[in-house]
Amino acid sequence: MRQQLLEIFHRRHACHLFQADQALSRADLDYILEAGRLSPSSFGLEQWKFLVLTSAQDKQAMQEACFNQPQVGSASALVVILAKIAELHPDAPYLQALLAREYPGAAYAPALANYRGFYGAVDVPAWSVTQCHIAAANMMTAASAIGIDSCPIGGFVAEAVRQQLDIDPSRHEVALVLAFGVCADAPPTKQRLPLSDLVEHR
Amino acid sequence: MRQQLLEIFHRRHACHLFQADQALSRADLDYILEAGRLSPSSFGLEQWKFLVLTSAQDKQAMQEACFNQPQVGSASALVVILAKIAELHPDAPYLQALLAREYPGAAYAPALANYRGFYGAVDVPAWSVTQCHIAAANMMTAASAIGIDSCPIGGFVAEAVRQQLDIDPSRHEVALVLAFGVCADAPPTKQRLPLSDLVEHR
Repeated sequence: MRQQLLEIFHRRHACHLFQADQALSRADLDYILEAGRLSPSSFGLEQWKFLVLTSAQDKQAMQEACFNQPQVGSASALVVILAKIAELHPDAPYLQALLAREYPGAAYAPALANYRGFYGAVDVPAWSVTQCHIAAANMMTAASAIGIDSCPIGGFVAEAVRQQLDIDPSRHEVALVLAFGVCADAPPTKQRLPLSDLVEHR
Repeated sequence: MRQQLLEIFHRRHACHLFQADQALSRADLDYILEAGRLSPSSFGLEQWKFLVLTSAQDKQAMQEACFNQPQVGSASALVVILAKIAELHPDAPYLQALLAREYPGAAYAPALANYRGFYGAVDVPAWSVTQCHIAAANMMTAASAIGIDSCPIGGFVAEAVRQQLDIDPSRHEVALVLAFGVCADAPPTKQRLPLSDLVEHR
């Protein structure tokens, strides 16, 4: 497993053009989404919502909202990750249900009090978006494990995406767009800084 | 591989207390860090830096900065993920070197111009922190694959962490702390919303 997972990480690369005629099976799509679902999240709040787009029309419209990046329109499926906002308010039923699940019984009241303090001190949409990146990473890993290529897309006009997908900005922030499919190009050589440049052992 | 990776995701859980007498081998630690290193990042900028803490004294001091959460002091190793800030400035040598690697030759000048526009429009520390969460997810997945437990810790007093680790806030934002080790408690039953609550097929 040790070596196989490393190969999965090596295999994953940002695909810049997909084979547009490839469909992603529902089983493969569900597998990828399941990896997102199983991800860890701050307070166990599953800050994400996944919008799946597969129609040519939707993908083309999204491509226009993403500075016309061709991997968007050519992908087999797009998963638009929305970061919850309104549902994370301390008085929201969603928040209270998930917090009670994570902190059951006597732990709930102090956890909610603690969360209220946290909520008041944090940039809620920005925090929610960070959590969505954890789910995104795991979905890309899962895709790579089953031979599906991906591209994470952070470059988009948020207002255009919201309009296209009819997203209420008080409820959701667009965190990022993941494109999945079969890459049209050969994978590039992976370039990374050496560990010695990234890691400091104290 | 399909089923094995899912088991890795299922196996990973937020460990709230580690067996304090367990050491993490350098090979296992490097494996985990390598998964972080191979992660995708916006513009290929590898926004992360990994500080590794293994001494009892450092872990105890970090625990105090993390609201005394016992998984911090009991972990075998802590990886503090720092999000780059100053090095992402369009005029910074780091930025220009990595952008030139990602966009070589004639692609570099327009990429830098594009990046300048992006940089001016984005909350740079917040954006850098999002990217660190991708590396964090992959490090936790890698740990799970080799039987190492983990806990992501977003709850800390940033100023206390900065002071403890002598971090210049103009250069780095503390993104999150990952604790690694062998869990002292049995894993809890994983609780997640069903896919039908999370996914919307458009």
